[in-house]
Amino acid sequence: MYKQPRIGILGGGQLGRMLIQAGIDLNIYFKVLDPDPSAPCKNIADEFVCGSLLDENTLFKFAEDIDILTIEIEAVNTDALQIIADKGTIKVFPQPSIVKMIQDKRLQKQFYITHNIPTASFILTETIADVWENKHYLPAVHKCGKGGYDGKGVQVIKNTDDIAKGFDVPSVLEKLVEIEKEISVIVVKSANGQIQTFPVVECVYHPEHNLVDYLLSPADITTAHEEKAKQIAIDLVKKLDYIGILAVEMFIDKQGTILVNEIAPRPHNSGHQTIEGNFSSQYQEMLRAIIGLPLGNTETRTYSAMINLLGEAGYEGEAHYQGIEKVLALPNVYIHLYGKTITKPFRKMGHITLLGNDKREILQKMDIIKKNLKIISQ
Amino acid sequence: MYKQPRIGILGGGQLGRMLIQAGIDLNIYFKVLDPDPSAPCKNIADEFVCGSLLDENTLFKFAEDIDILTIEIEAVNTDALQIIADKGTIKVFPQPSIVKMIQDKRLQKQFYITHNIPTASFILTETIADVWENKHYLPAVHKCGKGGYDGKGVQVIKNTDDIAKGFDVPSVLEKLVEIEKEISVIVVKSANGQIQTFPVVECVYHPEHNLVDYLLSPADITTAHEEKAKQIAIDLVKKLDYIGILAVEMFIDKQGTILVNEIAPRPHNSGHQTIEGNFSSQYQEMLRAIIGLPLGNTETRTYSAMINLLGEAGYEGEAHYQGIEKVLALPNVYIHLYGKTITKPFRKMGHITLLGNDKREILQKMDIIKKNLKIISQ
Repeated sequence: MYKQPRIGILGGGQLGRMLIQAGIDLNIYFKVLDPDPSAPCKNIADEFVCGSLLDENTLFKFAEDIDILTIEIEAVNTDALQIIADKGTIKVFPQPSIVKMIQDKRLQKQFYITHNIPTASFILTETIADVWENKHYLPAVHKCGKGGYDGKGVQVIKNTDDIAKGFDVPSVLEKLVEIEKEISVIVVKSANGQIQTFPVVECVYHPEHNLVDYLLSPADITTAHEEKAKQIAIDLVKKLDYIGILAVEMFIDKQGTILVNEIAPRPHNSGHQTIEGNFSSQYQEMLRAIIGLPLGNTETRTYSAMINLLGEAGYEGEAHYQGIEKVLALPNVYIHLYGKTITKPFRKMGHITLLGNDKREILQKMDIIKKNLKIISQ
Repeated sequence: MYKQPRIGILGGGQLGRMLIQAGIDLNIYFKVLDPDPSAPCKNIADEFVCGSLLDENTLFKFAEDIDILTIEIEAVNTDALQIIADKGTIKVFPQPSIVKMIQDKRLQKQFYITHNIPTASFILTETIADVWENKHYLPAVHKCGKGGYDGKGVQVIKNTDDIAKGFDVPSVLEKLVEIEKEISVIVVKSANGQIQTFPVVECVYHPEHNLVDYLLSPADITTAHEEKAKQIAIDLVKKLDYIGILAVEMFIDKQGTILVNEIAPRPHNSGHQTIEGNFSSQYQEMLRAIIGLPLGNTETRTYSAMINLLGEAGYEGEAHYQGIEKVLALPNVYIHLYGKTITKPFRKMGHITLLGNDKREILQKMDIIKKNLKIISQ
């Protein structure tokens, strides 16, 4: 018998916002915790608590009157979550121990090695001196063990001239992969054991600010690569014994080998287009998974693309959306604004999903959007 | 330049709820007025005011800090709305004078006659005595001029035995139409003059409680009927000089003539399936229309059906949803719960949209849903 589930979300950003949007139709009560008093979730959550995601007592108090506790951001106090989970009265998905492991890229990489998940070769570094000592390993990518996100905490080190840009904290030094394509698979494992993957998507990165520029769904790859990528994602959730939604970012290298880049234990930027492009969205599937409802149909409904809407460079202040009329005049284009009051250069302010019969049609529409839509302050 | 529009909605029921759901992605600020302190909109509106939709001062105060005022229910104080509209600082769509006319079925019918809109023949009655005097007019349908909804205020009078069931208030006595099909067209006219219709849908009524049992989209009718029905809807919004969304319920009679039954100046039960079944939904289109943004693509994306989820007979109390797991296990079935705490017999508690390749597939899934899903109290 189904009655209103009470779900607590740690983090009140756009991922939480879209999760709530997906949950309204299931009559879910959403309680959200975020340190930002004007977080994107604030006005659509049933209950919004402004507070730290890292403070143990804040988390204990927050969790008092909910059934299920989940996250939309990794940077949470996983030790506190573990204590809550151990009490056994509240379900905490994904499991805090897995989130804790994922928070540290060094542990992530070691997990891949231990569990036979393909990933780029790497060594661990504690200081910059370690990078110097291993200069034969260059060209490589230096990644902070903890705290990196959205391109921060990641530095390409081509040669010894670049070493000074590296990190003087515990990090991973990863052999530079000659990338053919960047792809992503979102996989869901339900509390009742059911597993589903979404079709593989292809991520095209912006050369300048190292964020996804646009993505295409499904990816233009061979069936063999499609199957292999999904199999790796399924293998991962099984080996992690994971419950919830997991985004698995991968490379296909020039030799055609698929390597896991990193994983995220939450809905992901590379799954936004599932809202309109697939029969069921990553947000709907995540909710079904953590509540323990049957999973839905993750198949592609229409070929689609997604672009992030970033704050225009040179503008900071109250957000205004220039050219939105031109975007809305295009057929089968879906704008998602995240409700952030203040725009900043390259801040993620929203995204757009485009549906089309083929890549050509989609890229034509994308071109019109990029030329016309600007998020600025006045 | 687009910045956050502030929209006030009179009425906080499921139609307002789905309107808000459609507006979150446009970063709209929604302020909602409803007399029910636990109305379906309460927790997802940016601001919820509990108060009467009929009290002039409540409406004046409510409208003070918004840009656009709209409705999701007809039973509002249209005179107060007219005063607000006349001030010219707030846009009120649809226009109060049209809503006032629509509130009275007698005025509606007279409008059709005056403006050459096809409708069933009728006479006006003031009292039951008038029905007796016109008993040669039977079989007929007696409809209260004001206050009827969801089958209330409508009475079939087959012969003189039924006359006592009629209404002793100003009403319409309408010649009984021999109905071949009931159809509905939703039409949108934007503040900037653009007009769009949705494809015609077919409404199948439940024989017992006179609510829509299910609907099919698009309707299984001839192209000529499809075009004629759309043309009538377009003709209506033009002749009304209407801005917003208008649902036009029609009959196709046994002779193949299309007759307008009644109209609703708001999103409508017969457009729920547009959320998943069409490229743009009735809610998205209504928002675009009243804000003055370009209209979207109203075309059918996938053949679909919609069923209302009604409270099970014999149960009144806190709502529990029996069999929801069986429904969610079906592919491409979308449940929408309206967040009503209390279930009552035949109360509209939600709806389900079903996508499918053909009617057979859809009716098979519908059968499983009807056999399994029950909204009861414990």
